[in-house]
Amino acid sequence: MRLRFAEPQVEGLELSCEVRAVLHSETTPYQQLAVLDTVTYGRMLVLNGAIQTTIVDEFTYHELIAHVPLCAHPDPQRLLIIGGGDGGAVREALKHPSVQRVDLVEIDGRVVEASRRFLPELAAGLDDPRVNVLVADGIAHVQGHQGAYDVIIVDSTDPVGPAIGLFSPEFYAAVRRALTAEGILVAQTESPFFNRSLIARAYGAVSSIFPRSGLYWGVIPTYPSGMWTFTAGSLAHDPSRPQAGRAASLKGKTKYYTEAVHQAAFALPPFVQELLEGPC
Amino acid sequence: MRLRFAEPQVEGLELSCEVRAVLHSETTPYQQLAVLDTVTYGRMLVLNGAIQTTIVDEFTYHELIAHVPLCAHPDPQRLLIIGGGDGGAVREALKHPSVQRVDLVEIDGRVVEASRRFLPELAAGLDDPRVNVLVADGIAHVQGHQGAYDVIIVDSTDPVGPAIGLFSPEFYAAVRRALTAEGILVAQTESPFFNRSLIARAYGAVSSIFPRSGLYWGVIPTYPSGMWTFTAGSLAHDPSRPQAGRAASLKGKTKYYTEAVHQAAFALPPFVQELLEGPC
Repeated sequence: MRLRFAEPQVEGLELSCEVRAVLHSETTPYQQLAVLDTVTYGRMLVLNGAIQTTIVDEFTYHELIAHVPLCAHPDPQRLLIIGGGDGGAVREALKHPSVQRVDLVEIDGRVVEASRRFLPELAAGLDDPRVNVLVADGIAHVQGHQGAYDVIIVDSTDPVGPAIGLFSPEFYAAVRRALTAEGILVAQTESPFFNRSLIARAYGAVSSIFPRSGLYWGVIPTYPSGMWTFTAGSLAHDPSRPQAGRAASLKGKTKYYTEAVHQAAFALPPFVQELLEGPC
Repeated sequence: MRLRFAEPQVEGLELSCEVRAVLHSETTPYQQLAVLDTVTYGRMLVLNGAIQTTIVDEFTYHELIAHVPLCAHPDPQRLLIIGGGDGGAVREALKHPSVQRVDLVEIDGRVVEASRRFLPELAAGLDDPRVNVLVADGIAHVQGHQGAYDVIIVDSTDPVGPAIGLFSPEFYAAVRRALTAEGILVAQTESPFFNRSLIARAYGAVSSIFPRSGLYWGVIPTYPSGMWTFTAGSLAHDPSRPQAGRAASLKGKTKYYTEAVHQAAFALPPFVQELLEGPC
């Protein structure tokens, strides 16, 4: 028997993956959750039918979302990750010697448990003594922690269901209040081919709330179009500039991130740049 | 009736596109050729079941393969494009005021005819008086034109069937001989996720034949993994450096290329950089 999982990525387009085995499947209070073993991308976390991360390509997303804000900040000690229950962003953050505490706030505890069991390469860092895993609502958490974090990473699912509030101007304003004086926010903001108005709205909100902002991008093969954006808001430092020597100080190798890749990720093709100049 | 076209991209992975209409289908002396009208990517050229280019995403590939070598060269006048029968690379090359002549050598004249008829946005430049379309074998053409070209672009299909010889060291050596003293070669060299040994071999050959070389990359949503590489070989100039002011001199806008994007495209993630350091 040959099994296939086909993700409807956008209208008229599916990515279809041959499946060796369905390792896990359940309906949580928030979403349908599955872990598949696929021929091409290895083990794959799927939420509500959408690919979240795979063993083969997860490094591009997790390195971009973690190292860009952490390397742009002069001394990141306290970090908040909203979403990211798979643990990949935590794993990358722990490579920074300055990081003393990581709060991971994931609304769906079953994602954390599934990742611990089936994706240990991503979840291993969740047991580090610096990490505090909270199964809670990220919006409420941010509202209750003013001035608490040097860096906040929004590692959310797509802007439907439980994640929809994580793309609102009110949420970005609450994130600003939860940051310390030199704080930096980074949020994943989808594809410049298929989510153009979302990027324009998210960047417009962040750039109106933070004194400095930037959009950067990278390749994530299992996400629609393979081209993905991240929106950064910063209270003091240019998010496109890595602090000198920081990359060399990381504990552990990177496969995607370098200082040059950090800066290059902010070089926007004109069809992306135009999203920053106003609503579509 | 709902039609779908599914491209088997690599083992275990298909990109499946909803098709509004099959605009054209034929078997040429070289390959099966189809033009589909797809819901997500608009009109799409398909050769032997592999997506070559689409109206929606073609600009990333054609701008990268054309403007990087042309902007790195101090005065590109004579250009050879091998393959590229759709005309997209020609269209971009004609934006350079210095270009006086473009020889397009496509082995399959039916690709040129289908593009003229169904992809006029790409093929329009083929009727420009500076362009000479030759239906011929690119390898023989290069061997017969020593010292004839300032820039040679290898815009080939995948390294199977008629294109296989376009990835050989002997071919790259013949390209070197066909270039003028400051000449530059660029060839498409596939995905760093799925074609790692091919990239290492192609880059190894080019870097042993040319005094300067470089690998650069960009996003092409309809190609496997969405991340695509180009290998550059140069007789005098650093291919990663655009000539000052060149981008601003282009006749016609670009959607992907800028001077900053040119330089950023050479910033290689470590998992790509390692391909340059020896065979896999």
